[in-house]
Amino acid sequence: MAEALGLTLRRDGALIAALSARFAARRMTMTDNNLKQADIIEGAVVLPNANGTAPGQWLDTGFAGYRKLVLLVPGPPGECKPLFADQCIPRLRDVIPPRHIARRTLKATFIPESTADALLAPIYSTYSDVETTILAGNCEIQLQISCAKPSLEAAQKRVDTLASRLEEALEDYLFSSTGETLEQIVLFYLELKQESLAVAESCTGGMLAQRITSVSGSSRSFLGGAVVYSNALKSAFCGVPAELIELHGAVSAPVAEAMAQGIRQRTGASLGIAITGIAGPGGGSEEKPVGLVYVALSDTHRTEVEECNFRGDRDRIRLWATQKALDMVRRKLMA
Amino acid sequence: MAEALGLTLRRDGALIAALSARFAARRMTMTDNNLKQADIIEGAVVLPNANGTAPGQWLDTGFAGYRKLVLLVPGPPGECKPLFADQCIPRLRDVIPPRHIARRTLKATFIPESTADALLAPIYSTYSDVETTILAGNCEIQLQISCAKPSLEAAQKRVDTLASRLEEALEDYLFSSTGETLEQIVLFYLELKQESLAVAESCTGGMLAQRITSVSGSSRSFLGGAVVYSNALKSAFCGVPAELIELHGAVSAPVAEAMAQGIRQRTGASLGIAITGIAGPGGGSEEKPVGLVYVALSDTHRTEVEECNFRGDRDRIRLWATQKALDMVRRKLMA
Repeated sequence: MAEALGLTLRRDGALIAALSARFAARRMTMTDNNLKQADIIEGAVVLPNANGTAPGQWLDTGFAGYRKLVLLVPGPPGECKPLFADQCIPRLRDVIPPRHIARRTLKATFIPESTADALLAPIYSTYSDVETTILAGNCEIQLQISCAKPSLEAAQKRVDTLASRLEEALEDYLFSSTGETLEQIVLFYLELKQESLAVAESCTGGMLAQRITSVSGSSRSFLGGAVVYSNALKSAFCGVPAELIELHGAVSAPVAEAMAQGIRQRTGASLGIAITGIAGPGGGSEEKPVGLVYVALSDTHRTEVEECNFRGDRDRIRLWATQKALDMVRRKLMA
Repeated sequence: MAEALGLTLRRDGALIAALSARFAARRMTMTDNNLKQADIIEGAVVLPNANGTAPGQWLDTGFAGYRKLVLLVPGPPGECKPLFADQCIPRLRDVIPPRHIARRTLKATFIPESTADALLAPIYSTYSDVETTILAGNCEIQLQISCAKPSLEAAQKRVDTLASRLEEALEDYLFSSTGETLEQIVLFYLELKQESLAVAESCTGGMLAQRITSVSGSSRSFLGGAVVYSNALKSAFCGVPAELIELHGAVSAPVAEAMAQGIRQRTGASLGIAITGIAGPGGGSEEKPVGLVYVALSDTHRTEVEECNFRGDRDRIRLWATQKALDMVRRKLMA
């Protein structure tokens, strides 16, 4: 970078001292290849990195007759993102004239992208001053709505007006009006309705519990559960009778129901959800193909079960199965 | 694309018929916006898409006096990757002259990138005809080694010679010599040594089980386990005495040990592994800060426990905790 701009580098003594101290504090030897992290471009301001050794640099310079801002930030996302937010954004605000942009993200699931677009395009296309982008991925449809106006209030009003109409059209496929994840929505409603949840997973092998516990504070409503990969564990942890498994097979509606009821009773949760299926690539048959998944949801009154046929590879089938489970809990809580 | 090349589009009747049949087979209505998926550039060969509706296109044409190959592939990775592999690669092989490149990927974990580079650079830098790239991420160091030669044998020999020297230098930080994931290595050794594994997870909330079961065939050695987010479930599913939790706290070495022993005994596995810790951002204290994690591994003879202090956000702490657990199992099995 220095070479491209025709500037020189200087090795910063204070940065070397900080590097040495950091290594010493961890009782690690500093190898010489770390020293280049202390090289600063002539005229640059050092941006301290609270999460790593390589600092950022802010250079306000000229090139080929134009003013140029050059920002150097460390590569690892865990260092780059906080450094950019804390030290670059405020400096950029001082330099670049302000604009008022309002944004909102709506999210829906279990509606195909083309169906959503056919449903929504006639609405959003009439709002020419609002930009709407449909993104599909990770088992959901995202509608990113944004509008730029001289005032934030005016921009927000246009975004909210369009958002309301899109929300109405999406009906109960919509799960989030302000960008939350499905996990966050499920945990929000669990807490609101003072319900508690436990899970029993076979083919998803912990992915559902992992998605729920990825949200900080999930312990307020989520008790835990069992990963019952073997048939013996389906009996030991969920009380599924061995005869039931023998009669219907581990991948069957009755076993899914027994798993959901069993995990609810054993954990004392008010809701129990269970997943059993064939994630592939092996293990499928003509009668029970790869992608066949049963998801059951049990409360104190009744147990419902859904039979699903997901397409794709092992990862995708497992992800869709956990999405179905979360969506069943959401629909029950919002009913 | 057609516009840029100065070519026309034609709507393909066979593709429209296939699209209609696909929608009809799923009892869905085909909206008109799907029809543009049947538009083909003049002179292009249609590449059938086995996993979706939009086909690929292969166009061998000229532009500005040069021969140009234009490949259009569908966007979703699940459609793009198999279509590229099955239909584009063989066609490209016919067009582009063959070269013989040998590759290998070594992987190591729990060694800092700068330490690895200081250790390895003096070795790989003497192999000027072999390209070595060090990548760090996802809790591991990857060494990608490649070499191009007139014959594959000659290239492979150079790659293997360097790889052997790097493997030796990495000692037991190395977990994979041919690119396998840590999960695959652990499952490989479990099967080889005829051991079985069960897990008990608190702060990682199913992530360890999810990682293990992401590997197809994991059921041969992995029985399952428990996600014991609440203290009551630590007792119910792992037999941890409530008094032990009260005395030492849920995040402590004795509780981790009891969880590992308990899950091993309750599931009948030969190895039990347990994780308890504080993933944050809440829940930390001066005595037990965010990032403190205990990982315990129990076999029929003894239980070992490691105290770890991971830095970073919730996701990163959880990922490192599962990495430590997998690495402890690997080291035990390879000892």
